[in-house]
Amino acid sequence: MISTITTLPEIQAGIEAVEKLMLTQADEYNGDLKSALSLLLSSGGKRIRPRIILLLGSILNANQETLIILASAIELLHTATLVHDDLIDGAVLRRGVATLNSKWSAAATVLTGDFIFASAANLAAKTNSVEVMKVFSTTLMTIVNGEVNQLFNSRCNTSKADYYQRIYAKTASLFEAATHTTSILSPVSALDRDRMRRYGYELGMAFQIVDDVLDYSGEQSVVGKPVGGDLRQGLVTLPMLYFIDSNPNNDGVKELLQGKCLDNDETIDNLIHSIVASSAIEQSINEAEQFAKRALDLISDLPASPHKDELVYLTETSIVRKK
Amino acid sequence: MISTITTLPEIQAGIEAVEKLMLTQADEYNGDLKSALSLLLSSGGKRIRPRIILLLGSILNANQETLIILASAIELLHTATLVHDDLIDGAVLRRGVATLNSKWSAAATVLTGDFIFASAANLAAKTNSVEVMKVFSTTLMTIVNGEVNQLFNSRCNTSKADYYQRIYAKTASLFEAATHTTSILSPVSALDRDRMRRYGYELGMAFQIVDDVLDYSGEQSVVGKPVGGDLRQGLVTLPMLYFIDSNPNNDGVKELLQGKCLDNDETIDNLIHSIVASSAIEQSINEAEQFAKRALDLISDLPASPHKDELVYLTETSIVRKK
Repeated sequence: MISTITTLPEIQAGIEAVEKLMLTQADEYNGDLKSALSLLLSSGGKRIRPRIILLLGSILNANQETLIILASAIELLHTATLVHDDLIDGAVLRRGVATLNSKWSAAATVLTGDFIFASAANLAAKTNSVEVMKVFSTTLMTIVNGEVNQLFNSRCNTSKADYYQRIYAKTASLFEAATHTTSILSPVSALDRDRMRRYGYELGMAFQIVDDVLDYSGEQSVVGKPVGGDLRQGLVTLPMLYFIDSNPNNDGVKELLQGKCLDNDETIDNLIHSIVASSAIEQSINEAEQFAKRALDLISDLPASPHKDELVYLTETSIVRKK
Repeated sequence: MISTITTLPEIQAGIEAVEKLMLTQADEYNGDLKSALSLLLSSGGKRIRPRIILLLGSILNANQETLIILASAIELLHTATLVHDDLIDGAVLRRGVATLNSKWSAAATVLTGDFIFASAANLAAKTNSVEVMKVFSTTLMTIVNGEVNQLFNSRCNTSKADYYQRIYAKTASLFEAATHTTSILSPVSALDRDRMRRYGYELGMAFQIVDDVLDYSGEQSVVGKPVGGDLRQGLVTLPMLYFIDSNPNNDGVKELLQGKCLDNDETIDNLIHSIVASSAIEQSINEAEQFAKRALDLISDLPASPHKDELVYLTETSIVRKK
């Protein structure tokens, strides 16, 4: 059962402090960089990682000011990767807002991403923890490596191992980094740090699987992008993988299993239609629920508090969202 | 008078360790990333920053292993900025070797640069110094901000202030970071740290001015790029600034002073020819010598040793090189 809960005023104030801190990173630099950062941050986003950091850190008694710095560092790292991602994909919209690359030159977009990476690293250093910096930089290596894999190796790849590696690199690694660094900055045991790291991992995996399901089953007007976009780009995700298991003789599936990329629009449309109507969607949701359940188990021992209730709520709702 | 000196075997061994450490950063990642890194590092370069770090750190009694990590971090940061720079400029060759962007897609080039940034940050974190991380990330912000300025504001800009800011961001900031972080990792006083930071600054400014002079007076076959390339790209550097002072009525100068970019090849060719034949070259070299002299003064109190001799030699020769 999912509890109904509203955000704690203290956490909301924390999120506002994070927004402000992120925005001021370009204050002493080129005015165009400042505008770009402002534009990127104004397009919003769920700020789910900052919320997790502020909630978990409060539960674990970390210093509030340090948590705000950490949350800003992690969210800016995420923002920087999106800037370069959208450039690489030639994406025109993100969350319904024009991407930077759709308005600026490639050169300016590359540099803005670089500047945001540097700002994120600078904030991470301001947590005054070498361990945090190590997790931070290793995570960036993992994320970028995943993107390189996706560019060179993952297209039309029907390997389950490739899929799990990909969603780890793309999403779970940063959730894991968020909860791991939060615990590093908290007065808790190494054992608890590892549990909190794993909590972020499980939650991040659940989160990305739900994203991948929504790519098939979401309402286009809510998700903000066309249904089946991943498959159209040659990206095989969990619903497709379950569909392959149950429908090895489907025409599109046969092509994919032969190592081909689908290039016929009708084949792709039919395949997307079949997947949406199949049990593959429910199987994928079940799997996301298993990840979320493991995530919940890992935080079950945390002391009862309104913060814990909200963290549990956020973990539960991460798999029942519509976008 | 410039001493003649050969590299100390210990420093040469250190440079080889730096090369090896840089190269292994992609070992556990995508094979194409590893190839790209290997290609980038094989094109060589003077490795002047690593040499300065190893020499200065030895004089200041820093831990050798930490110095090798730091030198690798700083050189990889430099390498990453070059990767994105060459992409932005559409450069085909660097040091006579094909650039990554000339062989790979823009997407792969962006990601390779990002990966090298992340590796550099990861190595910087491995120095286990939060102060080093702060200098490192702030320097990256300065460098990228300088590139954004150059993209948006510096074209055909005849302001001396703009020039000095530009060469600080482009070159001196990383020299300064190299000597500053070396001193941070050494058992020396805050006063000495500041002196060493300033040593890097002065040396870096001298170094870039010499680069800018070579762009006019260097032999194309030695420098590896056409004479006057900066001006052809709308970049006003010190020789041009001195020439403007003495020749306000030159046709090209008049256009520039009116805020125009030169677009007539003949005007540009004539201007380059006039600058090369003028005293502007010598005036610029004199200015580089003043920076180098201040740099030498800042290290004059360091105890006599073969390492100091080599550091002095390297500082002196930074302004008499041919490429």
